[in-house]
Amino acid sequence: MTHETSPLNASQPDIDLALFGALGDLALRKLYPALYQLDREGLLAESTRILGLARQDGDNEAFRGKVADALKKHVQSGEQDQDSLERFMNRLEYLKLDFSSVEGYEAIRQWRQGARRPMTVYLAVPASLYGPICRHLEDSGSLDDDTRVVVEKPIGHDLASSREINDAIGEVFPESRIYRIDHYLGKETVQNLIALRFANPLFGTQWNQNHISHVEITVAEQVGIEGRWGYFDQAGQLRDMVQNHLLQLVCLIAMDPPANLDADAIRDEKVKVLKALKPFTGDDLDRNVVRGQYTAGTSGGKSVPGYLEEEGANKESRTETFVAMKTEVANWRWAGVPFYLRTGKRMPEKLSQIVIHFRQQPHYIFDPDQRGLAANKLIIRLQPEEGIALQVLTKDSGLDKGMRLRPGPLHLDFNSAFPKSRIPDAYERLLLEVMKGHQYLFVRRDEVEYAWHWIDQLIAGWEARDTPPRRYPAGSWGPVASIAMITQDGRSWYEDY
Amino acid sequence: MTHETSPLNASQPDIDLALFGALGDLALRKLYPALYQLDREGLLAESTRILGLARQDGDNEAFRGKVADALKKHVQSGEQDQDSLERFMNRLEYLKLDFSSVEGYEAIRQWRQGARRPMTVYLAVPASLYGPICRHLEDSGSLDDDTRVVVEKPIGHDLASSREINDAIGEVFPESRIYRIDHYLGKETVQNLIALRFANPLFGTQWNQNHISHVEITVAEQVGIEGRWGYFDQAGQLRDMVQNHLLQLVCLIAMDPPANLDADAIRDEKVKVLKALKPFTGDDLDRNVVRGQYTAGTSGGKSVPGYLEEEGANKESRTETFVAMKTEVANWRWAGVPFYLRTGKRMPEKLSQIVIHFRQQPHYIFDPDQRGLAANKLIIRLQPEEGIALQVLTKDSGLDKGMRLRPGPLHLDFNSAFPKSRIPDAYERLLLEVMKGHQYLFVRRDEVEYAWHWIDQLIAGWEARDTPPRRYPAGSWGPVASIAMITQDGRSWYEDY
Repeated sequence: MTHETSPLNASQPDIDLALFGALGDLALRKLYPALYQLDREGLLAESTRILGLARQDGDNEAFRGKVADALKKHVQSGEQDQDSLERFMNRLEYLKLDFSSVEGYEAIRQWRQGARRPMTVYLAVPASLYGPICRHLEDSGSLDDDTRVVVEKPIGHDLASSREINDAIGEVFPESRIYRIDHYLGKETVQNLIALRFANPLFGTQWNQNHISHVEITVAEQVGIEGRWGYFDQAGQLRDMVQNHLLQLVCLIAMDPPANLDADAIRDEKVKVLKALKPFTGDDLDRNVVRGQYTAGTSGGKSVPGYLEEEGANKESRTETFVAMKTEVANWRWAGVPFYLRTGKRMPEKLSQIVIHFRQQPHYIFDPDQRGLAANKLIIRLQPEEGIALQVLTKDSGLDKGMRLRPGPLHLDFNSAFPKSRIPDAYERLLLEVMKGHQYLFVRRDEVEYAWHWIDQLIAGWEARDTPPRRYPAGSWGPVASIAMITQDGRSWYEDY
Repeated sequence: MTHETSPLNASQPDIDLALFGALGDLALRKLYPALYQLDREGLLAESTRILGLARQDGDNEAFRGKVADALKKHVQSGEQDQDSLERFMNRLEYLKLDFSSVEGYEAIRQWRQGARRPMTVYLAVPASLYGPICRHLEDSGSLDDDTRVVVEKPIGHDLASSREINDAIGEVFPESRIYRIDHYLGKETVQNLIALRFANPLFGTQWNQNHISHVEITVAEQVGIEGRWGYFDQAGQLRDMVQNHLLQLVCLIAMDPPANLDADAIRDEKVKVLKALKPFTGDDLDRNVVRGQYTAGTSGGKSVPGYLEEEGANKESRTETFVAMKTEVANWRWAGVPFYLRTGKRMPEKLSQIVIHFRQQPHYIFDPDQRGLAANKLIIRLQPEEGIALQVLTKDSGLDKGMRLRPGPLHLDFNSAFPKSRIPDAYERLLLEVMKGHQYLFVRRDEVEYAWHWIDQLIAGWEARDTPPRRYPAGSWGPVASIAMITQDGRSWYEDY
């Protein structure tokens, strides 16, 4: 194991980027704005070039026009400056390409002719194309020994299909040059889990079942299906959100401390968590997992249709738009500590947060009626704004309050704590780390596969029991059963901040 | 042990207050403003009366005039309202009294005639008068079975003299009705030590030598002697500040958790700390205690004289105006954890704070050059403004910083966290607790005596070795030896916030 992929090794990246799916939604909405911001901050090398690849007709000029429009739309106006825009535009070239046929790939080789900086191939295309594109790149002689490939989720829809995809990529690229993106790993607060846990003895020494009573993760979306009913209905919330984002968060919260920050040291520990996740067996599935599907309701003050009434809906669909579960990481560190996860669409607000609940001490000396207050919480907020808060109890300062307690959050809101710093988008960090050749923020093949293995078991259980989703009105926090699941443990979902 | 003196028992106080030393500095500067604030907040019972006692001629009207002047001067104008002032003034009566002769005390008995609320006698007079006043109160039949007495520091200047004073008070009052004030115990943040330690498992479970590397207490005064050279020179900084304030802070930081909040449960634990304080023996005294005396220098941008050039100074004085020490509480909880204390006059700023330094973890995975950052600190600030901060390390959010760390304080500044709440002066709290009959914020006799016992040993050591004070220029942080004392342990005094 070398230090090559450690985030401590900060070399100035200099690459060429070949972007497949250059006119797609992800590219326009996220990738160009992120690349532009990197350029603006001086983090793209002078010589770095970006080649956009798509099926559509077009030349460099037309392509640059489309990218310029996207930047206008997706970059804050205060961050658009003429010099940076111009420099960025000059990096862009366009190549019309039929991805499925090897014929056109020759042009990529020509584009690279003589370039000695490594190439990064970014596949912002459906996973079914990953294999063919990799193959054609190789067959056309466009690849070097140091070419990296970036792929987006989802990697398949179950273990078998993810293996097929990974095999196809793996035939061309070794694991050390494959960068699987889960954009949650690019969020400031998610990366901060590593600093919080391993640089702060106050938390680090208590990060186990002796001191933590339970962990909550909520990833609530306010939106519904947004025109992609057909796509979503094939997947459902469990595959779409839990298999990747929520399990990644579980891994970062639960992993044993890695011996160093090398990508594989971290990912070895993450895999151990996935392997230790308790499978749901028998009645567990009914007791500890809640499937939900939204019905018509109110969102943001407006009436909205139910999932089965959305455009393009199959009225018979039993796909879940909400899932809550109580799971456990069955190892020495976490035995007996429930991890309550929930994620859903059409929730009352957009809210992603992790709440670490510390155990109460066995003896209590303050007002008995305040006993419920008496525990610390570490709240790690991903959305809507990123921040960290620690709930600490202090004495109520009211003169006549004697020793009454008051929960006083110690807040670390990145925007107010460090007002000069813009919080970069997850894609900016991730692209930068790819360019630097750091893999620690990317998902290794075995992570994907162990996650699918666990999810597949769960889905098989649902299928075997023919579990229907429970209804919940749009604009609510999901089925009542989700509340009941945590309430019966004498706890509740934390919604304050 | 009953719950009578627990702060959880919040009865509406209704008392009469007899205030000896009614025209003295303490009364005018602190006590009337505090009583007025209590009245203004509705915390004085309708029927509560205040009798001012002093040697000077005067009647109620003249007395009220003087108190009104004092309030104008010492209460913020926004907090002076006519109704409250009028109500407060109507409570005041004046009695001219020669404290040393029993003759006049009869008038106190008459003033109390028929009053059924308990009387509190506040002795804002030199300690030499405590005995005679108590005696005369008793002999004149002015006392009831529930009369309380409040006395101010200093209680003597060594163990023997403190015993004499305590004996004299004790002949008349049982310990359960004696309230010895150390106004540091009335500060919000000092009381918050109890909430922080015992209501927060995050801190409570780590509050010991396994998790805390060292503790720092700084009580720095910016002022010099302020016209009381003769008085101060008899005492010195050790007696004047360490014996009471700093040792009280040490007790609250170091005490084992009391089984409940009863006054004696808390004070039993504090006494255990005082008994466990390591005495300085032999060379320890030179190595671990630094005496200082300021010379001429600069304070607040102005040239100021040295201690020996102050008005009324005896040029030969070897009294210390600064003391720093490294001590230890020799028990299971704290063995091996240095408590670094320092207090001095003519420091660069007014600063009172406690810093709890948590241990680093044995393994470290971030940038080696940031290793020095990697420990948590809990900072409890008493002056200039009260507040609590926890230093936590987070990831530097700069895009190109990889996993660089940044110390980000989680701040709990009472004024900004709870903007509606005025922070009451220590005397307001203390007077209110006296009225309620709660003793937990007052110093028990054995506390005073064990504190003196330890201080006496230290002073005897100085005398035996004839230790002279080291010079330090006014406006500095004390003698260089104070810096060296902590530096040789690889640490430094914490001055940031």
